[in-house]
Order: sequence, then C-alpha cells, then structure tokens
Amino acid sequence: MKKLFTLWAVCILSMLTAVAQDAIFVENQEIVSPEVNADGTVTFRLVAPKAITAQVWGDFLPEGTLVDMTEENGVWTYTSEPLNAELYAYFFVVNGQTVLDPQNTYLYRNIANYYNYFIVSREKGDVGDLYSVHEVPHGDVDEVWYDSPTLGMQRRMLVYTPAGYDKGSKYPVLYLFHGAGGDEEAWIEFGRAAQIMDNLIAEGKAKPMIVVMPNGNLNAQAVAGKWSKGMYKPSFMQHTNPVPTASMEQSFPDIQKYVESHYKVLKNRQNRAVAGLSMGGGHAYAVSKEYPGNFDYIGLFSPAILYGISSNFMETNLQSLRADQKLSRQIDALKAAKPKLYWIGIGDADFLYSQNKDYRTYLDEKQFPYEYYENDGGHIWVNWRKYLTIFAQKIFK
Amino acid sequence: MKKLFTLWAVCILSMLTAVAQDAIFVENQEIVSPEVNADGTVTFRLVAPKAITAQVWGDFLPEGTLVDMTEENGVWTYTSEPLNAELYAYFFVVNGQTVLDPQNTYLYRNIANYYNYFIVSREKGDVGDLYSVHEVPHGDVDEVWYDSPTLGMQRRMLVYTPAGYDKGSKYPVLYLFHGAGGDEEAWIEFGRAAQIMDNLIAEGKAKPMIVVMPNGNLNAQAVAGKWSKGMYKPSFMQHTNPVPTASMEQSFPDIQKYVESHYKVLKNRQNRAVAGLSMGGGHAYAVSKEYPGNFDYIGLFSPAILYGISSNFMETNLQSLRADQKLSRQIDALKAAKPKLYWIGIGDADFLYSQNKDYRTYLDEKQFPYEYYENDGGHIWVNWRKYLTIFAQKIFK
Repeated sequence: MKKLFTLWAVCILSMLTAVAQDAIFVENQEIVSPEVNADGTVTFRLVAPKAITAQVWGDFLPEGTLVDMTEENGVWTYTSEPLNAELYAYFFVVNGQTVLDPQNTYLYRNIANYYNYFIVSREKGDVGDLYSVHEVPHGDVDEVWYDSPTLGMQRRMLVYTPAGYDKGSKYPVLYLFHGAGGDEEAWIEFGRAAQIMDNLIAEGKAKPMIVVMPNGNLNAQAVAGKWSKGMYKPSFMQHTNPVPTASMEQSFPDIQKYVESHYKVLKNRQNRAVAGLSMGGGHAYAVSKEYPGNFDYIGLFSPAILYGISSNFMETNLQSLRADQKLSRQIDALKAAKPKLYWIGIGDADFLYSQNKDYRTYLDEKQFPYEYYENDGGHIWVNWRKYLTIFAQKIFK
Repeated sequence: MKKLFTLWAVCILSMLTAVAQDAIFVENQEIVSPEVNADGTVTFRLVAPKAITAQVWGDFLPEGTLVDMTEENGVWTYTSEPLNAELYAYFFVVNGQTVLDPQNTYLYRNIANYYNYFIVSREKGDVGDLYSVHEVPHGDVDEVWYDSPTLGMQRRMLVYTPAGYDKGSKYPVLYLFHGAGGDEEAWIEFGRAAQIMDNLIAEGKAKPMIVVMPNGNLNAQAVAGKWSKGMYKPSFMQHTNPVPTASMEQSFPDIQKYVESHYKVLKNRQNRAVAGLSMGGGHAYAVSKEYPGNFDYIGLFSPAILYGISSNFMETNLQSLRADQKLSRQIDALKAAKPKLYWIGIGDADFLYSQNKDYRTYLDEKQFPYEYYENDGGHIWVNWRKYLTIFAQKIFK
C-alpha cells in the first residue's frame, strides 16, 4: 500500500516538477509562514538568499509602516508583537518589490492587489474563532445569474443558504451589499460571511437565514473576469465609469424578485433585512428609504450616506440633508413604516465619521429612531466583519 | 455629477492608500502586462528598478526554461513568440524569487503555488475563444455540502446548472472528477468548465446539462481552508495521508443520491455521464465498472488506470491487468451493459501513456469497445480542457 503511494508520488512529482517548475519552491518546503505562536506573536519567514532587504507590510502594524525582516542563512524572519484575535492581511516587500508569501496559500484580492491573510484566535468565542471554519453544518453558496430588466443585463450574485435549507420550509432573507472596492464575492471572501453565519447559526445566536450578496457595481454584470468584458484589471471607482443607467434602489426589485421566486423565502417585512458596508451602506440606506415597509431590519455599516447617482446627492453635510425635500419625505415615510431596527455602525477613525455624524443629527432632528454602535478604527474589514456579526444576531427575532 | 465622483475618488483613494499601502503599486499603474499583441506575441512587463535579474516562467516556453527579461528605466520586458490560441500560465522570477505579475488580476492555484494566467484567442471558435466569457446566457455554480455516510462526513462539491435551469424541466448529469493535485474547484477555476459549458450550450454544440464536481480527496471534506482542518498548506498526494476510509467507487452513491434528490435530474443511464482527469480519470474508470448500467457515457482523460485504495492495484502493467479477476468480471459486466460511449483521451507525452497503452491492449483483448483520442503534449490542463470540450459534445445525444 505504502509502496504504491511512494511510487505514485515519485512518478507524479517528477512530472509536476517538469511541468510547473516546482524546483523553484523546493528550497522553501521546510519553512512555515506565518506561524502563530503560543504567546500570540506571529512569525513570518521567507527564503530569499539573494535579497538585500526584506520587509513585512501588515494591517496589524501601525498605518503606513513596513517592518524590516532579519536574515540568517538566506531565511528572512520577523516576529510580531502579540496580536489580538482577528483576521489579518500582509505581504512581503523584497528589494522594494511586493512578494506574496509562498508558504501561505490564502490570498485576498482588494481591487487589483493581492494580500496573504491569516487568522489569530486566542480563545473560544473570540472573533478569530468566529471567522474560522468549524465542524458545524455548513451552508451552501450559490453563484447565480439573475435577470435585471432595469439595468438591461444578466447579473451575477452570491446567495448563502443555511445548513438544512433543503429540509426546511421557508427562510428570512438578508440582502447584503459590498463597498466601492468590492464585488459580489467580497463578503464571502474577506468578509467571511459564510463562516460567520455558519458559526452563529450553529451556536443558536443567529436565526437560519438566506444571505443575498449582489454586485453593487451597477455598470458591471459580475466580478472582473466572470463576464464578457474580458480579463480586465479592476480599478477603484470602477462602478462610476461608465455611469450606470440605473441606481441600486431602482434596480433592487429585480434582485428581490429573483430571490423570492427561486428560493424558499418568507415574503414579508418581518423576514426581510438589508445591510451593507460603505457604498453598500449607501445602497442599504437608499433601498430602505425607497421601499418603506419592505424591510424590518436595516443595517448601515460605515455607510456612505450620500452615495447615489442622482444629482441631489452633491453635498454631504447637515445643511444638504436638511434641504433635501425628497429625503425628508422618504425618511418620514420610513419612520411611519416603523422598521424594527435601523442600525448604524462606524469606527471613530472612519473617514466617513463626520458625514455619519451629520446624518445622525439629521435623524435625531427628524426623531427617527435608530441604534448606534461606535468602535475603534477606520474604514476597514475588521469593522465590517464585526458589524455583520452584531447585526446578524439582532435580526429576525 | 463628475464633481461628486472626483471628490469621492480623492477621499476614498487617500483612505485606501493609507490602509492598503497602495503607494507601493502606484509606480506600476501605467504598465500593462501581459499584453497580447496583434501578431499573437505576448509582452510581459514588470516594474522592478532594483532587480538584478528578472525572468519569465511560462507554460508556453520549452519545459524547464526561464527566459530573461530586459530592463529599461526600471521596467523589465519580455515578448514571446507568436502563441497559438490557448489559456497560458506564467510567473516572474526576480533575483531568483517568484513574483506574481502585479498588473494581472488573474491567478490560478496549483496545490500550494500560484500562477498568473491569460488567454490568447486568434479567431472566433478557437480554444481561447471557447475558454473566454461571452455575452451568452450563463449557468450557475452552486457550492454545496452533501452528506457522505460512507465517508462519515459532510463534503463540499460544486454543481454547474445550465442557463435556463430554473425554467427547464429535467436535465442530464455529468459527474466530473479532478486530479491528484486538485480539489472540487479545479474544473471551474483552471478547467474553465463553466465557460466551456456556457459556450458549447449557447452554440448548440452540447446539450444543456448539470455538471457535478465533487472533491476527490477522500480524506478531506473540501478544498483547503473551507473545512475544519484549518488554513493548512495543501501538499501533493494529500489525498493519501491519512488513507481514506473508503474509495470513490464506494462513496459515489452518496454523491448521486444528493444530486438526484436536490436537482431536476433525468434519473436514467441515458442521461448520466462520468468523466475525470488523471486520478479523476481513475475515479471515472473505477466508478463506471463498479456500477455497470449506471452511465451511458464514460470519459477517461489522461486516466490513472490503476488508481485506487485497494491492494490489487499494486501494479500497472498489462500482466497485472490480465491477472486481475475482479477487473475481468467488472469489465465483462460493463461490456454487457453496453454503455454508448467509453472515451479515452491522452497526450503522446503523458507520463501515463504506457500504462494507458497497456489498458487499451487489455480492453482490446476483452473486445471491449471504446473510442480513443490521442494528441500532443503531456499530463496538463491544456489537454484536459480540450478533452472536456470534445467529450461534452458527444454525450446525451
């Protein structure tokens, strides 16, 4: 038995080496990177005998910092301070050139750039634990194409159905929007939405629900490479060029129609939620006020309050909010519809903080009830994963 | 309008730069790489002003070759010979260190190593065209978890449903297995199975069908990172350690049961096909002879004929085949069941060529009818994509 596998291994490995130039990687095979140590520090290792400098960029380091690695026998090493539980991104910089960690299979794409990532969990129940895959029943993720007559195209979205969906009857639905740098895969990839939902549902902390993740770039059919535009390089603000022919609030009914006709869905406001991050927070804001009474649960995560493609969104301050008659009527209508939860979360270092503060003041003036959550940090996934975790436990209950 | 977007762009870009160290990439923004030129040559460009050497590895180059790039003003360049239509993989080697192309968003993972890729299409209807996404109706891809009582675990697989599935009645099913270096995502990612099927179906060249892509590593629940083993680094022959508790042929009924109870499936042999590449060709070989009469269409792509986890698969030659009484009975039974197509495809440089030749001789001796396709090249995706394209047009007709 063992003999067979050895034979196979030799045979196929020799083939692979020829085909894939794996010889280049052989020298790296004994190296482990990153290694999360018992004390919570993390050690990064890179084999680069010819490098003059090697550094680490990581989102656990102070903003704008590269730390130097030290070299011994061609292996460059850096050990971090003890890290709190979290999902972290990093890459190496060798002689000024970005190099991904060849020992780490896990990559995350932000627009056109890749990062390695790893998870630190220090105890059961912390966020690292929550973002990890556990031996619990897993939900499915469907990559589906729906028809959007409003935008005049087929569009791709991801739909999470909870474990047991096939055996259950009907489920509530959370519509979950990504930000301006993302696409329909963002919440599943770096957002860890499937892991968060699997784990919260398994622990009984969230209701089993369907999570619908559309593409919010309304001039695109799908993530780069999955539609007929070809293998283009994604760019920031790609959703604005060309300017989309309709807004998210205008085209949203196409999404809801597809979901409610293709999935086992509870079709009432008590079982409908909408949320999103940044631009997607703007989408949740816009869609919820466009359709008062459609959602009982609304979540704005670091929202871009004034995001939109209509001309009355030219200003972002309290004065422009106060002057917007349409907004006033919509917020009044939404208030009258009495959604059960209007939840806003933002970090105190977020570049949208002051805009959000103005929006909260505006809501206060309108005596519009909302729940507010403020924490550390900026406009980052660390916060959006956290907000999803909090929001998901508050809805459909 | 434009003013708004400009404001946003400045605001958010400044945030992103701070968060994501995009400054490192700014110098690269004017560079296009790879660029497929009008004459079919391809130009690769890399900004690396501090590099002493920069090279390209690519599967369009002679095996085992790295070609040197030339430098001007810090930009390294290499232009290939004219390339035939195909999907090609490559990466850079800077000062001996593997570096992915920062201008190319498209990556493919082979076991633990990443490659950039690009497509060359020289005319409509060539393989590059076939592997590209076109403005045709797209099928969905479901990432589902099914119960395998035989293996004692929940397992993940990908299921392609053709465009119009929701409106259609019932569909034939192709079960499609990956190789020893792959997982349930292999056929969708580098295998371009969704694009091949979308395009063939849209052109009327293949019947609309469901394509089921299980995980063939029977000691794993899923691709690395998607199950509770954690964020481990995948290794070659990972499917053998630990030795799985059951074989693909033993556990296959769990897959078929799930598919036939969860999808709109024509449940008869005329509408059931099985195929696979390398180890997965061995799975198709094993499953088809274990269940004669279950499949009318069987496809072995560069198959590992003697792959299995039982001890009578210790030898790979004509003598061992002739001496295998169980195999003889199974092939007789399969012959008696008269499947409509038993298709074998292999490249003349494949390291499994001689084993396959022995198997064909064995089948000839048994007067077992099969269709044989031989072409150039080795044990590579170029061939497996081609075999899927050919096989998919032959089945369910």
